[in-house]
Amino acid sequence: MQMKNPIKIVTFGEVLMRLSPPDYRKLVQSDTLEYYFGGTEMNVAVSLSHFGLYTQQITNVSDDLVGDAAISVMRSHGIDVSKVNRVPHPLGLYFMETGSGMRASRIAYNRLHGAFAHIRPDMVDWERALMDADYLHWTGISPAISEGAYQTLRKGLEVANQLGVTVTADPAYRSNLWQYGRKGTEVLKELMHYSHILIGGVNEINEVLGTDFDHSKDGFISACKRLQSDCPNITKVFDKVRTGLSASWQKVYGQAWTGSEYILSEELEISQVVDRIGTGDAFAAGVIYGLIHFDDRDTLSYANAACALKHTIPGDSNLVSVEEVLEVMQGDTGGRIKR
Amino acid sequence: MQMKNPIKIVTFGEVLMRLSPPDYRKLVQSDTLEYYFGGTEMNVAVSLSHFGLYTQQITNVSDDLVGDAAISVMRSHGIDVSKVNRVPHPLGLYFMETGSGMRASRIAYNRLHGAFAHIRPDMVDWERALMDADYLHWTGISPAISEGAYQTLRKGLEVANQLGVTVTADPAYRSNLWQYGRKGTEVLKELMHYSHILIGGVNEINEVLGTDFDHSKDGFISACKRLQSDCPNITKVFDKVRTGLSASWQKVYGQAWTGSEYILSEELEISQVVDRIGTGDAFAAGVIYGLIHFDDRDTLSYANAACALKHTIPGDSNLVSVEEVLEVMQGDTGGRIKR
Amino acid sequence: MQMKNPIKIVTFGEVLMRLSPPDYRKLVQSDTLEYYFGGTEMNVAVSLSHFGLYTQQITNVSDDLVGDAAISVMRSHGIDVSKVNRVPHPLGLYFMETGSGMRASRIAYNRLHGAFAHIRPDMVDWERALMDADYLHWTGISPAISEGAYQTLRKGLEVANQLGVTVTADPAYRSNLWQYGRKGTEVLKELMHYSHILIGGVNEINEVLGTDFDHSKDGFISACKRLQSDCPNITKVFDKVRTGLSASWQKVYGQAWTGSEYILSEELEISQVVDRIGTGDAFAAGVIYGLIHFDDRDTLSYANAACALKHTIPGDSNLVSVEEVLEVMQGDTGGRIKR
Amino acid sequence: MQMKNPIKIVTFGEVLMRLSPPDYRKLVQSDTLEYYFGGTEMNVAVSLSHFGLYTQQITNVSDDLVGDAAISVMRSHGIDVSKVNRVPHPLGLYFMETGSGMRASRIAYNRLHGAFAHIRPDMVDWERALMDADYLHWTGISPAISEGAYQTLRKGLEVANQLGVTVTADPAYRSNLWQYGRKGTEVLKELMHYSHILIGGVNEINEVLGTDFDHSKDGFISACKRLQSDCPNITKVFDKVRTGLSASWQKVYGQAWTGSEYILSEELEISQVVDRIGTGDAFAAGVIYGLIHFDDRDTLSYANAACALKHTIPGDSNLVSVEEVLEVMQGDTGGRIKR
Amino acid sequence: MQMKNPIKIVTFGEVLMRLSPPDYRKLVQSDTLEYYFGGTEMNVAVSLSHFGLYTQQITNVSDDLVGDAAISVMRSHGIDVSKVNRVPHPLGLYFMETGSGMRASRIAYNRLHGAFAHIRPDMVDWERALMDADYLHWTGISPAISEGAYQTLRKGLEVANQLGVTVTADPAYRSNLWQYGRKGTEVLKELMHYSHILIGGVNEINEVLGTDFDHSKDGFISACKRLQSDCPNITKVFDKVRTGLSASWQKVYGQAWTGSEYILSEELEISQVVDRIGTGDAFAAGVIYGLIHFDDRDTLSYANAACALKHTIPGDSNLVSVEEVLEVMQGDTGGRIKR
Amino acid sequence: MQMKNPIKIVTFGEVLMRLSPPDYRKLVQSDTLEYYFGGTEMNVAVSLSHFGLYTQQITNVSDDLVGDAAISVMRSHGIDVSKVNRVPHPLGLYFMETGSGMRASRIAYNRLHGAFAHIRPDMVDWERALMDADYLHWTGISPAISEGAYQTLRKGLEVANQLGVTVTADPAYRSNLWQYGRKGTEVLKELMHYSHILIGGVNEINEVLGTDFDHSKDGFISACKRLQSDCPNITKVFDKVRTGLSASWQKVYGQAWTGSEYILSEELEISQVVDRIGTGDAFAAGVIYGLIHFDDRDTLSYANAACALKHTIPGDSNLVSVEEVLEVMQGDTGGRIKR
Repeated sequence: MQMKNPIKIVTFGEVLMRLSPPDYRKLVQSDTLEYYFGGTEMNVAVSLSHFGLYTQQITNVSDDLVGDAAISVMRSHGIDVSKVNRVPHPLGLYFMETGSGMRASRIAYNRLHGAFAHIRPDMVDWERALMDADYLHWTGISPAISEGAYQTLRKGLEVANQLGVTVTADPAYRSNLWQYGRKGTEVLKELMHYSHILIGGVNEINEVLGTDFDHSKDGFISACKRLQSDCPNITKVFDKVRTGLSASWQKVYGQAWTGSEYILSEELEISQVVDRIGTGDAFAAGVIYGLIHFDDRDTLSYANAACALKHTIPGDSNLVSVEEVLEVMQGDTGGRIKR
Repeated sequence: MQMKNPIKIVTFGEVLMRLSPPDYRKLVQSDTLEYYFGGTEMNVAVSLSHFGLYTQQITNVSDDLVGDAAISVMRSHGIDVSKVNRVPHPLGLYFMETGSGMRASRIAYNRLHGAFAHIRPDMVDWERALMDADYLHWTGISPAISEGAYQTLRKGLEVANQLGVTVTADPAYRSNLWQYGRKGTEVLKELMHYSHILIGGVNEINEVLGTDFDHSKDGFISACKRLQSDCPNITKVFDKVRTGLSASWQKVYGQAWTGSEYILSEELEISQVVDRIGTGDAFAAGVIYGLIHFDDRDTLSYANAACALKHTIPGDSNLVSVEEVLEVMQGDTGGRIKR
Repeated sequence: MQMKNPIKIVTFGEVLMRLSPPDYRKLVQSDTLEYYFGGTEMNVAVSLSHFGLYTQQITNVSDDLVGDAAISVMRSHGIDVSKVNRVPHPLGLYFMETGSGMRASRIAYNRLHGAFAHIRPDMVDWERALMDADYLHWTGISPAISEGAYQTLRKGLEVANQLGVTVTADPAYRSNLWQYGRKGTEVLKELMHYSHILIGGVNEINEVLGTDFDHSKDGFISACKRLQSDCPNITKVFDKVRTGLSASWQKVYGQAWTGSEYILSEELEISQVVDRIGTGDAFAAGVIYGLIHFDDRDTLSYANAACALKHTIPGDSNLVSVEEVLEVMQGDTGGRIKR
Repeated sequence: MQMKNPIKIVTFGEVLMRLSPPDYRKLVQSDTLEYYFGGTEMNVAVSLSHFGLYTQQITNVSDDLVGDAAISVMRSHGIDVSKVNRVPHPLGLYFMETGSGMRASRIAYNRLHGAFAHIRPDMVDWERALMDADYLHWTGISPAISEGAYQTLRKGLEVANQLGVTVTADPAYRSNLWQYGRKGTEVLKELMHYSHILIGGVNEINEVLGTDFDHSKDGFISACKRLQSDCPNITKVFDKVRTGLSASWQKVYGQAWTGSEYILSEELEISQVVDRIGTGDAFAAGVIYGLIHFDDRDTLSYANAACALKHTIPGDSNLVSVEEVLEVMQGDTGGRIKR
Repeated sequence: MQMKNPIKIVTFGEVLMRLSPPDYRKLVQSDTLEYYFGGTEMNVAVSLSHFGLYTQQITNVSDDLVGDAAISVMRSHGIDVSKVNRVPHPLGLYFMETGSGMRASRIAYNRLHGAFAHIRPDMVDWERALMDADYLHWTGISPAISEGAYQTLRKGLEVANQLGVTVTADPAYRSNLWQYGRKGTEVLKELMHYSHILIGGVNEINEVLGTDFDHSKDGFISACKRLQSDCPNITKVFDKVRTGLSASWQKVYGQAWTGSEYILSEELEISQVVDRIGTGDAFAAGVIYGLIHFDDRDTLSYANAACALKHTIPGDSNLVSVEEVLEVMQGDTGGRIKR
Repeated sequence: MQMKNPIKIVTFGEVLMRLSPPDYRKLVQSDTLEYYFGGTEMNVAVSLSHFGLYTQQITNVSDDLVGDAAISVMRSHGIDVSKVNRVPHPLGLYFMETGSGMRASRIAYNRLHGAFAHIRPDMVDWERALMDADYLHWTGISPAISEGAYQTLRKGLEVANQLGVTVTADPAYRSNLWQYGRKGTEVLKELMHYSHILIGGVNEINEVLGTDFDHSKDGFISACKRLQSDCPNITKVFDKVRTGLSASWQKVYGQAWTGSEYILSEELEISQVVDRIGTGDAFAAGVIYGLIHFDDRDTLSYANAACALKHTIPGDSNLVSVEEVLEVMQGDTGGRIKR
């Protein structure tokens, strides 16, 4: 099947195991945990794979039974795992108590000494991986984990630029990471210079550039222009805007700067959130799929619909099909049963 | 108990097993499946049985461990299973991925070569079954399965008419069935001539009569009058009208044509749907219970309340009591705990 | 930890086991039951313990494997169980079918011959338990169970008054209890004379005093004044007001009478209720915590936020931290993930 | 189906709910409990119903949601529940921590104030129930619960004797019951006079008669003869002998006294016990089925095979078919898959 | 990884879904079912894939959500699914009540009108699939399903013989299949002429050739010689011999005829069977792996160890690694924990 | 309760979370994990607490939701957690695939950068903890984790020796730990000089002393004498000897050297292992309980019975009561139900 579809997207990032007590329980209230494998970049790969594209994840996983399971799950989604390294360090993981209503979800991480933190540039044959690739997707999480992860990513971005691969960037800044010595905003700014599509908005631009644009439409447009001025490779910006009425009730819409134009999508409302994790990654996957198949306006609308749908899917990754996204994009949101 | 209650309702139709991954998961995300036995006519029987009436289901089930379980479940609800045939064909079943929010539920059927598809008129002693019956309920699903199911149903309707049994009809047309050669609308129209109560509305009338009445109040009234003109046995029409805000949020109200009058019920809103399957069957059971105990206006109100309550019950069948329906019918919808 | 925190709250009441089928199922639809240990006074102790205070529960539990588990769960929450008696009678319990939407939850009790019903004054060394206590909390459930429970509680209240321990009272009247011979309202009125803080409102005052104040603001104020007139020990009244849109959608706010002033909190809305049991107890624990740490206005606001949060926690007891209540109290109700 | 089979067995006894943590867990280790409905006499009825006979249970169940579920489960097995009374007392229940290996199962009961304890002779129309019955089965548990249960049972036995119904007795003596005042052994001896078949052995005879026969073959024969001498109605004795290597590994064989002859069955070994509860009841049902269909030797062999098979079935009741028992009785114990 | 390992095994056969109640329950005792995807040939592919070989399955799966899950599971094991057809017929499935001790497992199939039954020769590009293959594995189940399945397999065997692909055959005869018209033994004999390795023994040879060799060592040797005489392509025979003490306790050993020599493996005992399904397929996969890596004696020993280990793995397929099989093959069967 | 029992045992060691797929599944076969908190020294504390002694654990746990749950579980068992430090590092954990039959369990650790690895001597007030203690228990795992853990333990042992606290040592050597630089055998030998009771045998003595005594009775005696010669504080040695027939079938007996005499216990057989983890810790707890209450011979017998019983309990810790151990010690191993 991969033969028939020449569009290839490479993702680079940590594969994380997520462990959650079921049914909104506190950890101490449950004797079992549900688990999923995800990670922001893998989530993008999974979604694109379910959209029918060829995806390949570059990462390290543990050389133990947990890593075996991670590989198996990636394979189940159709992701090419031939470039996944097995290393003698445990797989990163996190525990999440899922919130509800006004109670926020709470997360405890165990990742800073994990398999991915030990990745180094010489573990990845970027030339070979990107040779036949069309897109390389990265996020601000990876360079925040370790010096090796940063160096490996930078190397990959250099090769992508040499080979003409389009780079999509989701440079989210997480202040509680970045413990290995480097300054996050400097690194993210450097890496943005290798990137072509920003998946993010005013928050990300302000963090990367040290600016303080506001969240108005004008603020967004000004921020995008400033970003293009500072990082001339950037051609477009796709941003997801969320309003959280509660942990269980969310509204999302998208806005974009096409380089010349401001675009706004419809707003979609999810009154009974099943899982909020990975909704941004679902948006990112939607953007990439859209860039390949649609114009900018439909790309934004598709990405927003994909993001909304992810709120209805358990786990970290968006498992919906193109058909399902198109249905929502075309306004079929009433939940009729498809027989 | 059945001794004390001489009102007997006979239902004819397929018993289906439903298999669903839990918690809004996709099939591939779960290693277990929840299962229920249902089927549109059995759902009516189950609900009427929980309302305290005597019900008997005419059907075929498989002569294997699945059929054993189906019989056991029917019995647990108090349905008389003495007229259920055991045949050497697998029980029909379907898989459902339960939707949420804007994500629709999706169903995959495995029924067209099942136990019920092999029913034939000579397998059912209709005279004996209907001898002491007051109502016979059928739907448009049964004659859509196989020639044998159609012939068996027609025979039953003939006997019912001979014996003075009131026939309630829910002639829903499902285009993806009807693969055995007959034209659905013709068959349904024929069978409507044996029926006295239509549980359905403009959609069903248009399908059966080939008309194109609109969904306005006037359209409904005109359609009902036309139906009565074409099928003079029909005395009343009870219709459920649904508005789906999402798979998780639904609104329902009922309208009816009493032969001389248009009736409208209050609208009920379910903001957190537990299970949408069988809500139409819950309405049908409510209508039948109402016809026995109430005037037309209360019948409609009772049926609508029953339909709304089914959205809060897992599985295919409405397990609520008369008391619970009356509480909702009387406006007690605030969810106070009953100690 | 208990060393560092000299504030001690003693609670007296039955520990009840709760057994519920999962996922809104009827009992007959499930082959497993989820269980929790709770009981209105223990719920208060659990919540206060999670707020960091030192709590001790006075009760009887069964001298069998169920009692072992009850003790273990109390300990897990940090409750001092050194004053719990083990007796050769089964632990009280109840079954609950959890409602949803317009379907109410239904409860079946099995408690009137249980371990707690057999408590007698000579089983409790009240002097020792209250010697170093700051608060004693009771509810109207305990004296409704048995003569022994009533006598034991009255003895405790006497000792508390002698030792200067503040008494908080939640004198809810449950008409289906009180089967051992005494008249509930008389007993409750008697016990109110030993109490200082009423956690309740017009309903409770009307029941205790036999009055019929209405539910307006003025009615509330008049009722409070009358209560203070009749029971001069009472200094303050904290009341929770609930509006149930459905079993799944609730709104709560608090009002209080400080002895000189009427206070009203903001209203909080829970659109997807996880568990309604114990929300009043969560409010009571919030009041007690507030009385220790805040002024009356913040006490009311804290208690209301605690009550709202309990709707998001499975089980009978409120397991949230002070930090989580403060977040909601300060308006952070949008459900952002805490990483 | 019941029409075709005129053999009717009536059972009288308590319906008990059993609650167990799964997977050999202690109660405190699990947040869920598995539950079953059983009770020694109902277990006999369930097994006989699965053997194709018509069974009717005389009992009281609670008039609440637990009783609804008990009724539903009895119905699911095909038991006639038309003589079950609903009363405003909780259903009896017990908690069991399932043992394994050398760890014994432990049970905590909650039954002495339950629905069945409140049964009285005037609640049962014994004449009508036994009019068309062939067998009445009782055990020593029922008269141990309450004076009312004893009186009701004695009345039933009297009527059975008047109507010529064969009475099978399993007069197990449980010392921890019998708390209502009567002396167990006296009552059991009285009731044995109304009985025709003893399902039990030296232990039961010694308890009832106050003798001290030993457990040898000769002891068994002497005890049976003495029993027949004291209770001349007794015609036959069927006894199950168990050797417990551990909670997980059991051996069983049967011995019988036919009135003139000693019979011994083969011994069957269960090396991986799934559930030990109800194995004696499975033997009793096997005896009754055998008395109807076989000679004494095959009856004993059938009963022993049924008893062995019950060790492989979760729950209190033996759900195997006649065909499955015959397979084991004929030596097919190797566990080949039946496709 | 597939790049590094040029050994490719192609399997042809139905992918079946298996649905079982957990914990030795009868279907009616559980509200959930565990499910697995398997099928005798896929089981071989899964095991070989876990042994590190490149496997490809030729089959039809349903074009619905069940088929999606089947594909996903095959992928998760690393099976090449690029030659799997999606067709508009439901996936075959079966229900199994898992036996224990002397209670046999019972199975109910639903497969004769499924996706695989609709396979036809023109749906498979055998030349391309086998071009780079080393082994083709088939069993007697496939040609028993439908004429199309038979024709497709025969075509594949012809191509395999043309291309020099080694054919391994497990010609088990199941009398309850073969409903489409052909005589099973004739078909199997025809297909054996295209095969090189028989995985089976006296039973299979007697069925295929119509002989009646006995189960002694001499009988086995004579049968093998006769098979080689009748089907000259056959070079070796590998047979698994099972002794079932009960459903939970099994013993297995292997015997083989190398064309010139009789070989016998050690016997392995499994006293606590976890899952008996697929143990023969595990043996077959062990034979194929052994033929590639070992001499005949070690091949037999490896296959027997693999078969024994499968009894400890839930589900249809053997998920153990080469390392685990070698440990058992070398006598490490004491169950020490591997840290 | 702690008041009444002045015997206090202090344990020092890591609290580990264990995560396992249920029902002998491979990780990839399950979407849920069962979890327990344990760790070799905590297991000893839990068991002693269930034996009614006062226990206190010295450790670090994570300052997050996982650490909250660990504290809660320790409390539930009655362990004094007032000396547990909360630190900003994740709690150590391990994944285990539970073996069965000849398939060994496999474990993957994630502990070397966890909360406990960051413990330092200045975090523990050993004087206060040991002031009123009778026993201090340590194992060879703790000093293998980190320099800080080693230093902290050595400090504790020094203080114990100064205060006259009896030190019990289980100096198991795990070669895959000890990654921080020190040589395990040297450290263990040093720490043995502070210890009074060895819980271990020839393996441990050989590792610690660098000797090569054999596993005969004479070898054991000679090894014990040599140990006493090299470490004069050692007064007694208690050793557990295991024979693993398979992962599911184990035999255990104990031997001891009392300083002057060799003692041997009976052998106990567990034919259906529920959980093998923590069986050595159960033996250690049995030894400590025995030293307090029994002579050496009964101590050994009690410890062996405790060890055997642990094989029947899910999870890491032995939750049985003194009564249950005594039953087995006295030969009651047939698994009769305790009602």
